[in-house]
Amino acid sequence: MKSKFVFVLLVLGTYFSAFAQQKQARGFEAKADVVEKGLIKVSVLYPYAEGKTFDMDYYEKNHMPYVAGLLGSNLVRYTIEKGISSGIPNSPLPFMAIGSFYVKSVTDYQAAIAPHREAIRADFPKYTNISPIILISEVVK
Amino acid sequence: MKSKFVFVLLVLGTYFSAFAQQKQARGFEAKADVVEKGLIKVSVLYPYAEGKTFDMDYYEKNHMPYVAGLLGSNLVRYTIEKGISSGIPNSPLPFMAIGSFYVKSVTDYQAAIAPHREAIRADFPKYTNISPIILISEVVK
Repeated sequence: MKSKFVFVLLVLGTYFSAFAQQKQARGFEAKADVVEKGLIKVSVLYPYAEGKTFDMDYYEKNHMPYVAGLLGSNLVRYTIEKGISSGIPNSPLPFMAIGSFYVKSVTDYQAAIAPHREAIRADFPKYTNISPIILISEVVK
Repeated sequence: MKSKFVFVLLVLGTYFSAFAQQKQARGFEAKADVVEKGLIKVSVLYPYAEGKTFDMDYYEKNHMPYVAGLLGSNLVRYTIEKGISSGIPNSPLPFMAIGSFYVKSVTDYQAAIAPHREAIRADFPKYTNISPIILISEVVK
């Protein structure tokens, strides 16, 4: 009876370990496949020019979390990048910063943003004097 | 004895389920933290204008894998996005496509690309008549 009990425990242990690993593997796969490919990406690009300023600290801690908070479960994730230089030698920096929202539906994005458009614009002068370019794109890969 | 056995099974089941979920949660967290923040992103942006063309199929199947293949272990991943529209009403599409390489070192990126710059440029006319903008940025979030 005792050895049978130990055997059952071993079988169960193996089963749950395998299950745990499979779940983790699926987690990674889901992230790579589902999180980006086929999603809509809304990119807000801030072109550099002489006299233009950008407060990355305010953007990261206030502006982006505020806009992200309006998007609810339609938002998969958002990213922020800081422009360093042009990749073409002797060319000026093209963009000071880019903020991007990865969303499931562009319609839901627009519906969520529309009632807050003026408030979002009113926040711009708190971190930049740049008029951004906004690109809506589809993640291909 | 039988009820004790059932109790042990219940405890084990709960333990392994919790373990499985924790492992999965760690998987997601690791992916989000390690893969992007602090990396260098090299973005190649193709501005839209009248008469400009872009063959996404060739770009995805030939050009991007070719360039990615030059970068070795410095490349963490690369992405491709297809421009759909401007996010600002009544504005033209800003970019037809953006291809991005996430790398660990910008110096290593430049060293890997330099000897192939002419070959890379010679591949451009096979998919586009656009002169791209190249931005080197740092992933902040």
